[in-house]
Amino acid sequence: MTAQRTNAGSLIRHAPLPIASRNNPRVKAIRDLRQRKQRERSGLFFVDGIQLVAAAIQLGAEIETLVIAPDALTSRFARQLLREQRERGVECLEVTAEVFESLAAKEAAQGIGAVVRQRWQPLARASPADGCWVALEAVHYPGNLGTILRTGDAVGGVGAILLGHTTDPYDPAAVRASLGAVFAQRLVRASLAELADWKRRHGCTIVGTSPAAVIDYQTVAYRPPLVLLMGSEPSGLSPAGLALCDVLVTIPMVGHGDSLNLSVAASVMLYEIFNQRRAADEI
Amino acid sequence: MTAQRTNAGSLIRHAPLPIASRNNPRVKAIRDLRQRKQRERSGLFFVDGIQLVAAAIQLGAEIETLVIAPDALTSRFARQLLREQRERGVECLEVTAEVFESLAAKEAAQGIGAVVRQRWQPLARASPADGCWVALEAVHYPGNLGTILRTGDAVGGVGAILLGHTTDPYDPAAVRASLGAVFAQRLVRASLAELADWKRRHGCTIVGTSPAAVIDYQTVAYRPPLVLLMGSEPSGLSPAGLALCDVLVTIPMVGHGDSLNLSVAASVMLYEIFNQRRAADEI
Repeated sequence: MTAQRTNAGSLIRHAPLPIASRNNPRVKAIRDLRQRKQRERSGLFFVDGIQLVAAAIQLGAEIETLVIAPDALTSRFARQLLREQRERGVECLEVTAEVFESLAAKEAAQGIGAVVRQRWQPLARASPADGCWVALEAVHYPGNLGTILRTGDAVGGVGAILLGHTTDPYDPAAVRASLGAVFAQRLVRASLAELADWKRRHGCTIVGTSPAAVIDYQTVAYRPPLVLLMGSEPSGLSPAGLALCDVLVTIPMVGHGDSLNLSVAASVMLYEIFNQRRAADEI
Repeated sequence: MTAQRTNAGSLIRHAPLPIASRNNPRVKAIRDLRQRKQRERSGLFFVDGIQLVAAAIQLGAEIETLVIAPDALTSRFARQLLREQRERGVECLEVTAEVFESLAAKEAAQGIGAVVRQRWQPLARASPADGCWVALEAVHYPGNLGTILRTGDAVGGVGAILLGHTTDPYDPAAVRASLGAVFAQRLVRASLAELADWKRRHGCTIVGTSPAAVIDYQTVAYRPPLVLLMGSEPSGLSPAGLALCDVLVTIPMVGHGDSLNLSVAASVMLYEIFNQRRAADEI
């Protein structure tokens, strides 16, 4: 609270004015979270939009700071969210609508965002018995990663094991594409060698896809514990990734192209696994 | 061909030097094709990268001009493509690597691109008997549209009927996401009323998806002639779109979210239809 002189000349206590400078150090620090280096250094990321902030809160993410543009915050639901978070003692940083727009990824900024702590799980605390994992080798596009998390959530999957040098699930484009599933799915970083060791210790079936495989993906009975291993967008699984698979399947195609979009291929596989479990009344 | 004085002082005939200015009017006209307005005015679009240019040629697209950066064109396959197209009389515009980069959408420009004529089919010349069509209402993201075309091609679909105000399949992001399927799939623009009239005249089943539907998408027998109708990303099918559907199905979800990415939902549906046809030995 700061003391300000009103028009009437009396000294009364006001809430601080919203930050009006894009160059304010706190605003700059939040904007810097667009860079992976800054996200990894701080362990934080920034989301904006009512839906993502609501998902973060609902799914128990650790909110460091809510960022609010009071003038742009017209949604009653968002105002209610804000009230509740304030009551819980979450810090709220007020900025002008213009400053908020400089932070927001969405074209139509909704005046609410959150700085959220990343949540990573060590591979040692993950188990194939938890449910179906998706392991991703060298996935490049954050939009694909976010979309895979979204489908993984939809089919009751556990999370994603990101192998080696992959894109960041906390990249703004991945978070947006996940539509909040990034808060619901568990995230693990590991090397392929660590995954191989984990598989040996726990015992599970690793299913990979390859255009060169001869087994139709629909002819396999997918029994848990199961990990779906997918390769990178342009080149598919590496030789070491292929070698780790117990089963290699192909998704049939009859067109001119020879591959599907990675998130589509992962989703077609995840729905096949899910549909088999549904047919067996396991879900 | 221009006449230039060589070091030796003799006058010999040279090919013109590659265009070195980003502001060259022809270069600017190609760059302007990034804008939908310019694409619609000219009926043209620009693709870059060996794979897309090869797909355009292979699938019989009408190439207006090949755009080449000789210094950046290291691929033997691309040089072969270029030779063949030159022999067929296709105009080749040579630009410097720097100018090419100013045109290219890809980060790693491969030194070959093409200005291609758009191909639209009137609804009157399309028929449900041609095979499975995807009709899209108000699809917003070009990446989603391109991905749907890519899956449509993979499952032997005919093409896309774009209803009302949708994104442009010739948007650079849509073309890239289609990975060339934009040259293989037939493209129709129509209103919902025209689709309704077309349906009445031809007779076909229109299948829509809705989270509110009660019929599980796997319990329906998808018999041709069939049109899969999908709604927009945030809001799904409009009331008029829903009313046009003969069957409304839902793709089950058990996670925290209540929807799938549009191109994932379309792909899961397209693979179900495709798998049923495969099981019936129709493909």
